Amino acid sequence: MRHLLSTRDLDRASAIRLLDVAEDMAETADRAVRTLPALRDKTVVNLFFEDSTRTRLSFEAAAKRLSANVITFSAKGSSVSKGESLKDTAQTLLAMGADAIVVRHHDSGAAHRLANAGWIDAAIINAGDGTHEHPTQALLDAFTMRQRRFGSEARGRGLDGLRIVIVGDILHSRVARSNVWLLHLLGAEVHLVAPRTLLPTGVATWPVTVHEHLDDALALEPDAVMMLRIQTERMRDAYFPNPREYGREWGLTHERFARLGPDTMVMHPGPMNRGLEISSSAADSSGSTVLAQVTNGVFIRMAVLYLLVAGADAAISAPGNAASATGVTG
Amino acid sequence: MRHLLSTRDLDRASAIRLLDVAEDMAETADRAVRTLPALRDKTVVNLFFEDSTRTRLSFEAAAKRLSANVITFSAKGSSVSKGESLKDTAQTLLAMGADAIVVRHHDSGAAHRLANAGWIDAAIINAGDGTHEHPTQALLDAFTMRQRRFGSEARGRGLDGLRIVIVGDILHSRVARSNVWLLHLLGAEVHLVAPRTLLPTGVATWPVTVHEHLDDALALEPDAVMMLRIQTERMRDAYFPNPREYGREWGLTHERFARLGPDTMVMHPGPMNRGLEISSSAADSSGSTVLAQVTNGVFIRMAVLYLLVAGADAAISAPGNAASATGVTG
Amino acid sequence: MRHLLSTRDLDRASAIRLLDVAEDMAETADRAVRTLPALRDKTVVNLFFEDSTRTRLSFEAAAKRLSANVITFSAKGSSVSKGESLKDTAQTLLAMGADAIVVRHHDSGAAHRLANAGWIDAAIINAGDGTHEHPTQALLDAFTMRQRRFGSEARGRGLDGLRIVIVGDILHSRVARSNVWLLHLLGAEVHLVAPRTLLPTGVATWPVTVHEHLDDALALEPDAVMMLRIQTERMRDAYFPNPREYGREWGLTHERFARLGPDTMVMHPGPMNRGLEISSSAADSSGSTVLAQVTNGVFIRMAVLYLLVAGADAAISAPGNAASATGVTG
Repeated sequence: MRHLLSTRDLDRASAIRLLDVAEDMAETADRAVRTLPALRDKTVVNLFFEDSTRTRLSFEAAAKRLSANVITFSAKGSSVSKGESLKDTAQTLLAMGADAIVVRHHDSGAAHRLANAGWIDAAIINAGDGTHEHPTQALLDAFTMRQRRFGSEARGRGLDGLRIVIVGDILHSRVARSNVWLLHLLGAEVHLVAPRTLLPTGVATWPVTVHEHLDDALALEPDAVMMLRIQTERMRDAYFPNPREYGREWGLTHERFARLGPDTMVMHPGPMNRGLEISSSAADSSGSTVLAQVTNGVFIRMAVLYLLVAGADAAISAPGNAASATGVTG
Repeated sequence: MRHLLSTRDLDRASAIRLLDVAEDMAETADRAVRTLPALRDKTVVNLFFEDSTRTRLSFEAAAKRLSANVITFSAKGSSVSKGESLKDTAQTLLAMGADAIVVRHHDSGAAHRLANAGWIDAAIINAGDGTHEHPTQALLDAFTMRQRRFGSEARGRGLDGLRIVIVGDILHSRVARSNVWLLHLLGAEVHLVAPRTLLPTGVATWPVTVHEHLDDALALEPDAVMMLRIQTERMRDAYFPNPREYGREWGLTHERFARLGPDTMVMHPGPMNRGLEISSSAADSSGSTVLAQVTNGVFIRMAVLYLLVAGADAAISAPGNAASATGVTG
Repeated sequence: MRHLLSTRDLDRASAIRLLDVAEDMAETADRAVRTLPALRDKTVVNLFFEDSTRTRLSFEAAAKRLSANVITFSAKGSSVSKGESLKDTAQTLLAMGADAIVVRHHDSGAAHRLANAGWIDAAIINAGDGTHEHPTQALLDAFTMRQRRFGSEARGRGLDGLRIVIVGDILHSRVARSNVWLLHLLGAEVHLVAPRTLLPTGVATWPVTVHEHLDDALALEPDAVMMLRIQTERMRDAYFPNPREYGREWGLTHERFARLGPDTMVMHPGPMNRGLEISSSAADSSGSTVLAQVTNGVFIRMAVLYLLVAGADAAISAPGNAASATGVTG
């Protein structure tokens, strides 16, 4: 693996290996050995053309726990806004010594362009491009489901047999897209629920079942219900239901939450609009994985950086687990 | 001590211990051993809902000198501005691995809410909440007075017998509030000077003497005169004197400064409005502690982080001084 | 050397020593030993009153590779915007423990004022002041020329006999000013090309030859052609040619580039306005040093920080090279 651009590029073995390395990272954190020397002397650049405090801080925390130098390039007010091209910006960062570039961009396909145009020689990690993909979010979601379902038996497994319901504005959601490909790859059964106006035209070709009504999907007794964040600024658009209707029809209200099975995971990528797409009773319940997703996000990003930057493929395939290759012993 | 929210929560012994640990930090800096390993593997988050470059940089410098990972979350343009609650923001930071959260917030009581609502499990340090408190500022002020007055004999002492005059917009000043409680606790005699319209209604219940005229207070030959910063944006309000009148009546003008005793400390939390609340002759005099306050601010914040995060209570109460417990030997 | 304010302050021996130390830094990077312990326990402050992402990141990368603590003070929205003076800001940073202050300021002479007013005791590095100087840019340009021309024979040399053409808005360019003094000091022959309205009045006293037409200067078969960035916001001013005319008369168009000798270096400080002052064929050619300049910028800034902060004069003048003094062995 050279870059991480899309969950669609992963094969099942690589995806599972990534989740397993993230398990190693979680284990070392449990032992309170939180800073690993694996990326000492490496430089990770966060190149953010869109604000995203959560994702940026998570990558920053991950890189620092691996002892990398972290440089954050926020494109607002920078030479980019003076008209510099994405290519020149990226080549400049590489010339400063970047080993990996974590890129967040408002254009779908920006990360692919960076990685595939032959411009640069660093590992590119897509941290969200337009409405296209957000692969580390999908990986942390899958990791969270696998860990919650299988606990200490999680290693080496996919998500075969799990039934996942994803609810909300599928049309604009890069989280939904990345999850659909990854969950399908890992053997899960994926259901999407959305108002018709918030479904992409190509959804018929996706490996999913589509529902218009949330109650129909919840009746299937899913293992996990993933509520997408509603971007309230879209609510002014004509195709969007009004907030009250949206909450009533597609929100995980207290009533709907109360009908879920006790083991059903309640997922949300955050930040939540409490009272809109999710009730506080659901968000704060014991079935909620919202905070576990944040914690696991750091482990997934550590795993991705480790595999892409430390060139650790050999080490990972060796007997034992990745932690030994990261400099952790015992 | 679990959090630092208010100087009102401190007892005399804890306050003096904090000042003594800050002495240890100052001593190690004098020996040019400026980076201590005490918080290696710990993460300190600066959660700033208000801009405050000075306070943020001081905490950042303190955390880095203790080898902590530092993550800065500036709430402007973040998910907070997208409507996320303080609770969700704080829990997210905790889920990313925060061991301490340094919080600056425009609402009085925000730090208390974070610490006491049972939401999170990290140490909370109040870096200024509305017009309420700014405890590390008061601690660095007390440290500066103690060191200036007692030098190498400072350890273990309070400020008994010192007479301190605090001048300015007491109504809106968290610095004044935190200082009043702490200085009183340490045995000092506290005098406040302000225009009537800039005194809080409850001031009669505080352990202070109030003066309307600065010259009356200066006639008492105080050990220290602390000038508060005037927030010039308030000057447009009806209850505020006009700038010329303010400077003439409540400013430490060159004439007033010239009448002070040679050992009177001239204090200001910065940034100063030279020519308004303080003259340059006073600010740059040998009695001025303005820059010592900045330097000591880093030591106080190191001490606070050390005591709250390293769980070093046992170590501190052991014979010898804290420096040995911080990994410094010799 | 105590500060780096202007290339005009350098003598030939110091300039060459600086370039030689940067060679050492480049060599250690080639050996993949990218983090040196030289500035452990030191604090470098980036004090930026103007946005400049590239220069700021380059200094940040340089300081981190030397293991310094790096603190960035962006003056926008800080106490500076509340009216604090440059003096008080700088003294505050010093009081927090700054060993070096890298300053970028919109006023010509700001760095000199900081260094020479007797206010502070840290090393001051000018990272661009108004239209005056940008010495590290000139040093990295000289380093790039020397390395490209002399390769492994570069150490100890100046640029004697090289002919350099600098093209563009000389009037407003601190890059041009710093380069003129440094290139002349190192023995190069310097030619300037600009529209008459974009030449400073004092240019007649500079050690350069001035041309109005770019083709006249290129006919001299220069060793390097340095294209300055056109600040497009100036294009609205009356004295400025319109963009089409500018590109045709003073741009390094594809046609002009094609007529250059195969060894002519094409230089640009970045970010480039492709199609305006430089064609993409020139920018991306094998003669282009644009990315080498970025890479070398980090080495030059490491060398400057090392010489000014580590107090390493003795070590540098010792036999052998600086790398041994930086803690690198072998």
